[in-house]
Amino acid sequence: MRHEGNMLIAQGGGPTVVINQSLVGAVKEAMKYPQINKVYGALRGVAGLVNEEFVDLTQETEQNLEHVADMPAAALSSTRDKPDEQYCRDIFEVLKAYNVRSFYYIGGNDSSDTLHIVKQYAQQEGYDLRAVHIPKTIDNDLVCNDHTPGFGSAAKFVAQAFMGANLDNKSLPGVYIGVVMGRHAGFLTAASAAGKQYPDDGPHLIYLPERVFDVDSYIEDVKRVYERYGRCVIAVSEGVKDSDGNPMVTSLVDNVEKDAHGNVQLSGTGVLGDLLARVVRERLNIKRVRSDTFGYLQRSFWGCISDVDRKEAREVGEKAVQFAMANNQDGSVVINRAGDYAVDYQFVGLEEVAGKTKYMPEEFINKEGNDVTEEFLKYVKPLLGSEWLRTYRLQAPMVSQNASK
Amino acid sequence: MRHEGNMLIAQGGGPTVVINQSLVGAVKEAMKYPQINKVYGALRGVAGLVNEEFVDLTQETEQNLEHVADMPAAALSSTRDKPDEQYCRDIFEVLKAYNVRSFYYIGGNDSSDTLHIVKQYAQQEGYDLRAVHIPKTIDNDLVCNDHTPGFGSAAKFVAQAFMGANLDNKSLPGVYIGVVMGRHAGFLTAASAAGKQYPDDGPHLIYLPERVFDVDSYIEDVKRVYERYGRCVIAVSEGVKDSDGNPMVTSLVDNVEKDAHGNVQLSGTGVLGDLLARVVRERLNIKRVRSDTFGYLQRSFWGCISDVDRKEAREVGEKAVQFAMANNQDGSVVINRAGDYAVDYQFVGLEEVAGKTKYMPEEFINKEGNDVTEEFLKYVKPLLGSEWLRTYRLQAPMVSQNASK
Repeated sequence: MRHEGNMLIAQGGGPTVVINQSLVGAVKEAMKYPQINKVYGALRGVAGLVNEEFVDLTQETEQNLEHVADMPAAALSSTRDKPDEQYCRDIFEVLKAYNVRSFYYIGGNDSSDTLHIVKQYAQQEGYDLRAVHIPKTIDNDLVCNDHTPGFGSAAKFVAQAFMGANLDNKSLPGVYIGVVMGRHAGFLTAASAAGKQYPDDGPHLIYLPERVFDVDSYIEDVKRVYERYGRCVIAVSEGVKDSDGNPMVTSLVDNVEKDAHGNVQLSGTGVLGDLLARVVRERLNIKRVRSDTFGYLQRSFWGCISDVDRKEAREVGEKAVQFAMANNQDGSVVINRAGDYAVDYQFVGLEEVAGKTKYMPEEFINKEGNDVTEEFLKYVKPLLGSEWLRTYRLQAPMVSQNASK
Repeated sequence: MRHEGNMLIAQGGGPTVVINQSLVGAVKEAMKYPQINKVYGALRGVAGLVNEEFVDLTQETEQNLEHVADMPAAALSSTRDKPDEQYCRDIFEVLKAYNVRSFYYIGGNDSSDTLHIVKQYAQQEGYDLRAVHIPKTIDNDLVCNDHTPGFGSAAKFVAQAFMGANLDNKSLPGVYIGVVMGRHAGFLTAASAAGKQYPDDGPHLIYLPERVFDVDSYIEDVKRVYERYGRCVIAVSEGVKDSDGNPMVTSLVDNVEKDAHGNVQLSGTGVLGDLLARVVRERLNIKRVRSDTFGYLQRSFWGCISDVDRKEAREVGEKAVQFAMANNQDGSVVINRAGDYAVDYQFVGLEEVAGKTKYMPEEFINKEGNDVTEEFLKYVKPLLGSEWLRTYRLQAPMVSQNASK
């Protein structure tokens, strides 16, 4: 940083259970640099920034910072605002007024975009400003990154949910559908397979937004699995679409309710699961069909944290400050897989990450589009952390049935 | 046990994450008694019992039994069958054919009822049989019990879900509705309050099946909380009913969609939450309203176990065998709170537990019927176990807004 001044940090978009690790990593690292005077935290992301709602993070005890690091959800609060040009201009004016010389935004690709535009205003005015993006998203859809902070813990939640749901379904057989977050990228839904161990373990079918969801194929798939195992566990991404790219909720209403009067609510969170359950019930005449929509627990459930994810989330915060200070550069911290399993961190230009979406690569999805591959499992398992659980079953032999004959 | 012979154990109804602790507790205890020859496990509860589908649990390694004890869901598989008189007669005939002299059924109050009837057939024929009920239910609705095995862990899941949801909702304010299991008794929904710490922590409103759910009062409640905190977290039991005793789902359809053509699906798992969200959106004009239905994760999520619940579930299995063997008696093991916090176990007649339901006592619900009392919190907290988490918030002071003026 060429100019002595203040630093500002904010959190944007949907929170994760490790987003405060990144916050605390950056704040504690920043306090080591004498040219940084104050470390401000903007409340509610860019929304609080333009309203000048800042807290002075240099007046936090180290004890409390470390406790807050372990809390799910954004400690500074977040926002869904996606700034347009004027909004970015307003952000820049506030930064200037507070002599902010480095601006760190923890968020997805929208945050990177915002930083990119704010930086352009700074350049136009010759104002020395470091604009730094710290990645975060449970969707794992940021380009340039092997994976993103927040994904590992959410993936662990989804995997553990399906491990339990699989055993529950084995106890009381039927069809179970779990609807997982992910509107465009299927990584989180795919993670449902990470806990599979025995050949008959579910989820037996996995549907991702990267493939067209065809109702007839779905019904055929469920029929085949159900005939084989007497039960079927299904993971579906909330973002699955039909061949025209329309969300399946719309499509299913046509399919299931041909005489509908249009009164089915399309926007409710439980609707997709309910409709997917109903089509199985009606077409396959299976009685016990249940659906769960995992919802916000996936990103906020207390106490389900991947230790690998926690460590990396902390490190991207620290590295963000180190990269910016050491090289006097703007950019986005990215996670690179450097071994099996090891990572290193790199710093790329903001424009490389901004506004782009990463999808599941071809080799992670099976040919039929209803499951993941071994390659995906190899990719995802290290991200779930070291505290991993194994399934055990009774091994006792059957008793011969001669007694009552 | 007057007659040497075999023992049979089975698991019935909805599983829990500690139901296998009770299984293993009983099996290991039984192996200490020379008059018990074989320990059979019936697959799929009474359904496998009448089909003579048994495994020989004396041929399990201790290692594997201990691993299986830690698994969620019923290791022997379960059933929803509620035997009638003839079914019970068939059960008795199979028990007799296999020289089963003690029959242990891990389940809710239906299981106790089944045991009671089977025992009557044994008495009619002068067949010496111990019929023993081992309690289990996440609903916590068994009479004679201070609480039931399985409840503590499910309550911990619900409490941790709301702790996370509360912070998520604080990060991105709006109205959040979490729908919790419990058709008749509100204990599990009430447990949502166990993680509250700061005065503004949610859930701010809790609706239980023990009180009439009135839509107008609900809307008034939400309005008041939202005006005060700018957000509102709500816990609702899936079993809430209107003043005529009808499930709210039916009632809300009339309320929300006066011109509906009857096409709204009533049986789907996500419907109640979606409807409760919609009525807030429409009447209070609040944009960000979200609902989650926690579903099967509450009873099956891997890795969310209360250590207190785990220990007690193990002990009720052990005590079941001890009570039956020591006194040559039938009965149901019940948990009695003997201190703060300590329990002891007692053995009551099957007919005392059979077919009855326990509800939240009056002193656990506030006068307005929209929250729990301090007395309930005192009751529930010890059941969640020792690994309890605290909430921490940033304490940093606000920065004065003079810079850009």
